[in-house]
Amino acid sequence: MADEDARREDGPLAIVCGGGTLPLTVADAVARSGRRVVLFPLRGSADPVAVARYPHHWLGLPQAGRLRRLARKEGCRDVVLIGSLVRPAIRQFRFDWLTLRLLPRIIRLYRGGDDHLLSGVAEVFGEHGFRLLGAHEVAPEILAREGPLGGHRPSPRDQADIARGLALIVAAGPFDVGQAVVIANNHVLAIEAAEGTDRMLDRIAELRRDGRINLPEGVGVLVKAPKPGQDRRVDLPSIGPQTVDRAARAGLAGLAVMAGGTIVAEPDRVVRDADRAGLFVVGVRDEASA
Amino acid sequence: MADEDARREDGPLAIVCGGGTLPLTVADAVARSGRRVVLFPLRGSADPVAVARYPHHWLGLPQAGRLRRLARKEGCRDVVLIGSLVRPAIRQFRFDWLTLRLLPRIIRLYRGGDDHLLSGVAEVFGEHGFRLLGAHEVAPEILAREGPLGGHRPSPRDQADIARGLALIVAAGPFDVGQAVVIANNHVLAIEAAEGTDRMLDRIAELRRDGRINLPEGVGVLVKAPKPGQDRRVDLPSIGPQTVDRAARAGLAGLAVMAGGTIVAEPDRVVRDADRAGLFVVGVRDEASA
Repeated sequence: MADEDARREDGPLAIVCGGGTLPLTVADAVARSGRRVVLFPLRGSADPVAVARYPHHWLGLPQAGRLRRLARKEGCRDVVLIGSLVRPAIRQFRFDWLTLRLLPRIIRLYRGGDDHLLSGVAEVFGEHGFRLLGAHEVAPEILAREGPLGGHRPSPRDQADIARGLALIVAAGPFDVGQAVVIANNHVLAIEAAEGTDRMLDRIAELRRDGRINLPEGVGVLVKAPKPGQDRRVDLPSIGPQTVDRAARAGLAGLAVMAGGTIVAEPDRVVRDADRAGLFVVGVRDEASA
Repeated sequence: MADEDARREDGPLAIVCGGGTLPLTVADAVARSGRRVVLFPLRGSADPVAVARYPHHWLGLPQAGRLRRLARKEGCRDVVLIGSLVRPAIRQFRFDWLTLRLLPRIIRLYRGGDDHLLSGVAEVFGEHGFRLLGAHEVAPEILAREGPLGGHRPSPRDQADIARGLALIVAAGPFDVGQAVVIANNHVLAIEAAEGTDRMLDRIAELRRDGRINLPEGVGVLVKAPKPGQDRRVDLPSIGPQTVDRAARAGLAGLAVMAGGTIVAEPDRVVRDADRAGLFVVGVRDEASA
C-alpha cells in the first residue's frame, strides 16, 4: 500500500545519486511508472554520463542548502537517497549555510553509528518539508524476490551455510555491523564491516591464493541481508553484476540475499553473469528475523 | 593449581612449534622453570635458527605418527601446540600411517569449526597417551595481566570502544569467529575472521589511506579476547611487537586484550614499541564473560 501511495504522490521525485548503476536503475523504474524524476548527482560519486539522461543538478558534499533550494524549485517533495558514496577529504567539503547549521547535529548522529545517522538524516529531511523514501518504496521491482534468480541452485550444504550466515547477521545486528558475511562449510570466512562487500570478497580471493583459506572452488556463500531494525529507507543492502563477478573470483558457490530486503541492480546481467560463472543467486526468507 | 601441577610433572615437555616468536618465548619460560623441553618445529612454519637452541625434531604436516614416535622416545607425556601455522598445499602434505588412520575423523572435526577441531585434536592426543596442555598452563607468565602494560592509558572514549568490542566478541562467539575486532568512536571498523589479526589491521590502514575510514589518527582500539567457551589449550589469542606496529600504522589509539586470556609475546618489546608509538596496551577483565 505504501508503495502505491508513493507512486501516486504528486510532483517529481528527487533522487540524490551516489555511485554505481543503482541510482539509474531506480530512476528508470520510476520514470517507467509515469513519474517525473529529477536527479541530484553527488560530485565525485555519481556517473556523469548516466545522469545526463534526466534533468539533474550536481551537488557537492554536504550541500544541504543547495539540495533544499533546488528540490523546492523543481517542486519535489519526495526524496530518495541511493548509490555508493565516495567520502571526500574534509578539505574538499563544499559547505553552505544550512549544512553548517546542521553540522553539530550530524556529528552527534555520526557518533551513534550508521543506523542512528541514517534515521537522523531522515528526520532532518522531514523537518524541512521533505519526505525521505526508500528506493524500494518508489520502485519495488528492484528488490530481490524469493527463490533462485538464475539456472543454478544452492546444494543442501550451501543451504546450511546460508542459514548460518543469516543467523550471524542477526547476532551482529545490535553492533550495527555485518550486512554481509561469507560462510563456507559452516565456517565464517569473513564478516563485512567498514570495508564493504566488494573488498570483503576480494579478500576471500586473496586468502585463497595465499593458502590461508584451503577450500576447493565452488564452496562458500555470500549472504547479504539488512541488519535487524535497519532503516530500510536509506541503507538497503544491494548486489549487482560486480558482486557476482567478485564472488566468482572468490571461488564461492553462490549468493543468497534476503528476499524483499535486498536490491538487485541490473538483474538481467546478474542472472546472465551468474549462470555463465556457475553461481547460484537466490532470494531467501529468514524465519529468525521475519 | 593446575599450572603448578603441570610444572611439577615428570619428563620433558614436547612443544609443537608453529611460526612466530611465541613458541620460543614459551620454551624459554618452561626451561627457566627447570623443566626440560623438546621442540617439534613444523616445517615451513617454525624458525630454524630459533629452534636450534633446544633439542628438536622437525615435523612435516600432518605427521602424527612421527610426532607420537619421537615424543614417546624422548619421554614426553605433556604436549603444547603453539605458534602460527602456514597451511601447506595438500600436495605438500607428508602423510604417515597414523595420520591416514586419523584422517576421516580430522575431516569430520574440521567441518565443525575451529573450536570443535581443536577440542577434537586434544581428545586424539589423550587417546594416544599424551596430555595436551595450554601454553599458559606451563608458562603462566606469558598471559596478559590486568592494567596498562606501558606508559599510555585508554581515554574514556577508548574505554567505551573496548567495552563495545568485548561485547561484540561475546555476541559473535557462538559462530566461532571474531577473536579480534577494531572499534573506533563506537563504530565497528573490522571483525576478524579467516584473515587473522595482522591482515585485519593492515586493512584498517588501507581503508584510512583510501578515505573509506575518515577518522583522525589516534582513534580506535584493537580488542582481542578468547571467544566464550573457546578451548584455551590450543587457541589462545596473542599479541606481539608486530601487532603493536600494525596497530600504529592503522592509526589506532591502542590495544586492549583480555587479562588472563591473551598471550603477550615479547612483552618488553611490546611495551617499548607501544610507548614509542604513543599507543596504550591494556589488559582488561570482561564482566560479561567472567
